[in-house]
Amino acid sequence: MPMNSDIISNPKSDRVRRLASLTSSRGRRKSGCFLIEGPQSVREAIAYRPDLVSDLYVRSAGPDDLRPASKTLAAIMDQALELGEGSNLYVHMVTDQVMDKISTDSQGIVAVGDAAGIMAFVDDVDLGSAAGQESHQPQADLLEPSRNPAGGTEDTLAGPSVAAFWQVRDPGNAGTVIRAADAAGCRAVVFVDDCVDPLNPKVIRSTAGSLFHLPLLTMTTEDFLSWSSAQGLVTTAADVYGTAGKRPLSLTDLLYSGPGDGQQVPRALLFGNEARGLPQEVLDQVQDIVSIPIYGRAESLNLAASAAVMLFSLAMSSHIERM
Amino acid sequence: MPMNSDIISNPKSDRVRRLASLTSSRGRRKSGCFLIEGPQSVREAIAYRPDLVSDLYVRSAGPDDLRPASKTLAAIMDQALELGEGSNLYVHMVTDQVMDKISTDSQGIVAVGDAAGIMAFVDDVDLGSAAGQESHQPQADLLEPSRNPAGGTEDTLAGPSVAAFWQVRDPGNAGTVIRAADAAGCRAVVFVDDCVDPLNPKVIRSTAGSLFHLPLLTMTTEDFLSWSSAQGLVTTAADVYGTAGKRPLSLTDLLYSGPGDGQQVPRALLFGNEARGLPQEVLDQVQDIVSIPIYGRAESLNLAASAAVMLFSLAMSSHIERM
Repeated sequence: MPMNSDIISNPKSDRVRRLASLTSSRGRRKSGCFLIEGPQSVREAIAYRPDLVSDLYVRSAGPDDLRPASKTLAAIMDQALELGEGSNLYVHMVTDQVMDKISTDSQGIVAVGDAAGIMAFVDDVDLGSAAGQESHQPQADLLEPSRNPAGGTEDTLAGPSVAAFWQVRDPGNAGTVIRAADAAGCRAVVFVDDCVDPLNPKVIRSTAGSLFHLPLLTMTTEDFLSWSSAQGLVTTAADVYGTAGKRPLSLTDLLYSGPGDGQQVPRALLFGNEARGLPQEVLDQVQDIVSIPIYGRAESLNLAASAAVMLFSLAMSSHIERM
Repeated sequence: MPMNSDIISNPKSDRVRRLASLTSSRGRRKSGCFLIEGPQSVREAIAYRPDLVSDLYVRSAGPDDLRPASKTLAAIMDQALELGEGSNLYVHMVTDQVMDKISTDSQGIVAVGDAAGIMAFVDDVDLGSAAGQESHQPQADLLEPSRNPAGGTEDTLAGPSVAAFWQVRDPGNAGTVIRAADAAGCRAVVFVDDCVDPLNPKVIRSTAGSLFHLPLLTMTTEDFLSWSSAQGLVTTAADVYGTAGKRPLSLTDLLYSGPGDGQQVPRALLFGNEARGLPQEVLDQVQDIVSIPIYGRAESLNLAASAAVMLFSLAMSSHIERM
């Protein structure tokens, strides 16, 4: 891990200006990089995707003091040091003013990630083969048990394997649902159709590190439907109303009814836009439609709560059966 | 429903200034009123707590046109009209400029609520009697089945009867958890210790009307613990770590294990602060500690997702048993 022996102290330098520009989508497009802010995100990025991280900027203890400003920051620098010689990670110490200029949400530390790298990871899915004509290699890789670190139950797919979000637009929601999908043990997250940029800093912060834990793919609606079915996933829409032909199943029926209670098939669960839900033409093309029962007077749950309830209910019921 | 035949058009009038001040806690304290913003919240307030609403401000179609500016607004005015003679609700038409001055989140309509009224509703709980010395009347009222409009299963308490939040500080979180508790069929929400003001406009907006659907109480930690046990509720903390003496139960154990699967006892579920969770001394005093299993690499879920998962899992499992 190479380290600069000078403290970066000029908040008006080109480098600092360039770093600050990464909070805008224009700046990210121009540079091909994205910003990872705060101890938690930086820690998870270094732990799970060190290949993506090129530079680490750490607040120094003082304008002439090369030590990091806190123990938390020092621990993350140690973690970066342990990557050893093979790593391309470069560490820079910066003054308070420089850090404040780079990001108002840094809590003393930011890292620069390779957007092409994470986007290749996200998009490296051969949909031609997913449609069944050729090898399933890329998808098989993606859903391989090794991606899931939970103990004991790694050998087969179970529960909601994939969490998909159609036109999710709010950055906070987008991050929160990625975090919930990670916690529920999903193998991948898919952003379907026109969603918020997953490299928006607010999305990354809201994932609390989960962006670096599981593959995030972006696809058109059509590609998602064929990919999901080629993967052997039951494409399942979360919706309150269903369609003329298909009344929604209640989530409780899926969890508790009849023989095979809790024996969940691998599903790709698709959630709609925050305000408008899923359009009719998408509902017409999924295999199942499931709704969350409402026991009180509220009309519905918001997107993040719906996703958490559905992903966890299915995950818990399928893990239970296999204990 | 009396109605003013003039359109309020002066954005600098005392009345408009006073209304705008209700977005601050100082303004609410001074006037004893709070602001209900947007069609959804206003609609639910008129439907469920008309006793609280004194004035309705509606955007007019034009500076000299007394009709409401949209069909949505007209429908809410009709709803207010149906309250009839007995109601104290007064309707005012206002210009665009006046509405923008009152609130940037009005979507054309705001109502003024009586803070003393809703706070009395919230606080009208005799803790002396809850401790067991006297009649349980106020609490019994509070948890009466008639408060819960869901069909079929109203006759007994079941599932997580009460959702309680200790030192919830973020307005968006506070509103979201009230909405989730409502949807899960909880009989009441309790804000324990030093929480955000539930009449903060962002809290109200985030509840999506649920603030008017179920009783919201505020209590000290000590009062909550004794009230909850006097109500016959099993006080249950949501926590990942537990205490030295009590390892947390997994939520899956509560839902699925052993005889009595899904036969939920009535619980008061207590959730901790967004950043710090629950302190040791509170954990020491609850009857059960329950944690949500994490199947992926995420460390945890955020507060709103945790609350939604736990409240719904318990609600669904107890409703299933009684079908």
